[in-house]
Amino acid sequence: MVLAEVPSAAMGAVAAVGKVMPSLHPNQYSLVFNAFSFSVATMFAAFVFFVIAQSRIAPKYRISMMVSALVVGIAGYHYFRIMGSWEGAYVAQGTMYVFSGKPFNDAYRYVDWLLTVPLLLVELVLVMSLPKSKSGSMLTKLSLAAALMIATGYPGEVAAAGDIATRAMWGAISTVPFVYILYVLFKELGDTIAAHPPEAQVLFRNMRLLLLATWGFYPIAYMAPFVGFTGAGAEVAVQVGYTICDVLAKAGYGVLIYNIARIKSENEGWSLDGTAKASHT
Amino acid sequence: MVLAEVPSAAMGAVAAVGKVMPSLHPNQYSLVFNAFSFSVATMFAAFVFFVIAQSRIAPKYRISMMVSALVVGIAGYHYFRIMGSWEGAYVAQGTMYVFSGKPFNDAYRYVDWLLTVPLLLVELVLVMSLPKSKSGSMLTKLSLAAALMIATGYPGEVAAAGDIATRAMWGAISTVPFVYILYVLFKELGDTIAAHPPEAQVLFRNMRLLLLATWGFYPIAYMAPFVGFTGAGAEVAVQVGYTICDVLAKAGYGVLIYNIARIKSENEGWSLDGTAKASHT
Repeated sequence: MVLAEVPSAAMGAVAAVGKVMPSLHPNQYSLVFNAFSFSVATMFAAFVFFVIAQSRIAPKYRISMMVSALVVGIAGYHYFRIMGSWEGAYVAQGTMYVFSGKPFNDAYRYVDWLLTVPLLLVELVLVMSLPKSKSGSMLTKLSLAAALMIATGYPGEVAAAGDIATRAMWGAISTVPFVYILYVLFKELGDTIAAHPPEAQVLFRNMRLLLLATWGFYPIAYMAPFVGFTGAGAEVAVQVGYTICDVLAKAGYGVLIYNIARIKSENEGWSLDGTAKASHT
Repeated sequence: MVLAEVPSAAMGAVAAVGKVMPSLHPNQYSLVFNAFSFSVATMFAAFVFFVIAQSRIAPKYRISMMVSALVVGIAGYHYFRIMGSWEGAYVAQGTMYVFSGKPFNDAYRYVDWLLTVPLLLVELVLVMSLPKSKSGSMLTKLSLAAALMIATGYPGEVAAAGDIATRAMWGAISTVPFVYILYVLFKELGDTIAAHPPEAQVLFRNMRLLLLATWGFYPIAYMAPFVGFTGAGAEVAVQVGYTICDVLAKAGYGVLIYNIARIKSENEGWSLDGTAKASHT
């Protein structure tokens, strides 16, 4: 009879499949939920902006804006799903939100990154307008490194909560392509950036710093369980942190790309008032 | 009283309509679910790309891009349905995902292929810009063969799990149009490909290899029960394998078509900066 009074959802939590979510204060639960909703709104708004903004830049740069639109569109979809998964993972019980027993699918993030991280690097290479021969090989190696980085992080992420060794191993493997990407961005692409107009150079440098700052958060969040940073506070910090980083690294990054493309379009004589190129004779 | 404690979902599995799904470890269940979600995101992102990318190629090639958009749009819809069907087919029980008794509708794939496989061949023929007389008959015979291949595979797929004979028979029948399609692609279209600019020829050859590699997976998955490859591992391998192949054979294939169309547009003097064709005089 006592058993019959326990809601079935809470019973599921006793023998949960996958990670058991910590109980949250309503404010904690809502903060995460609202951060997800913020991200959905931002990503879809950015999608509309990047689609429409194409007409404001020279045709050759429109492809990078289109890729920006795809990135935030894909991210908007995933945040919508993450928000739904979060809602399903909790039930209000007494004055707290407790785990419903339905797993929170954090792995949507990996699915998202597997698609969007290579595309973010593609945006960057496209707006640089490298010579065709160089741009092809640059696109291939950066996309492959990005996909490898995400794919090798995943087994560590889905490893059992106590299995720190597995997490550490995959985390270390995943760091190799990450460092390689940074090397390419900061070393190999340095010369190409130096060949840009000064205004654009500043933006490129800002963009690399944005990448470093936001992408740098992911390994930190990944390592949180190593240092025993778990429980309600950790869950909220990681979820809100991921969301802020995703918004900056995708929508914010896309706006930087747009500004670079605007400056380059103007410098090349393309004007908003007409598609005509100023003659260089 | 003991019976009352068995969840109704698990009871359903006892007398299931159709195939009984194997119990899965949470990581297996999630891997398949996330692969489906990955495909949904990729297909719809590709849809947006192919719609917008039309403005980047000469008007005569836009129809093939439009067909690419239809293919990935249709596939995105079907993966969304497959994802929902997968979710409905399983319930968490203890530390595992067990069959809920609600059949997993794998046949969505056949519905999808019946539409998309002929369209994929249409894309290819359209981007080749064959003479009108030849293109019409090529479209008819390839589309018919593709539809026949899918339609004759279906009765074998839905045959009872133990009925290997029925599966083998329909599988064999379905192989006839498959081989015919390969014959047309590798023999009859060979001359047309040779008449293209060298850059485009490489892409055409890559595309045929992509078709062979990805389409080749379907008969292998179809034959898995013949060799006793069933159970949890097999289910996961087949579902993830199908998903990867569909993403490559539809979105990846469309990107190849786009690149071919770009190269041909440029070679014919069409430029991104204006719709005007350069005069050849």
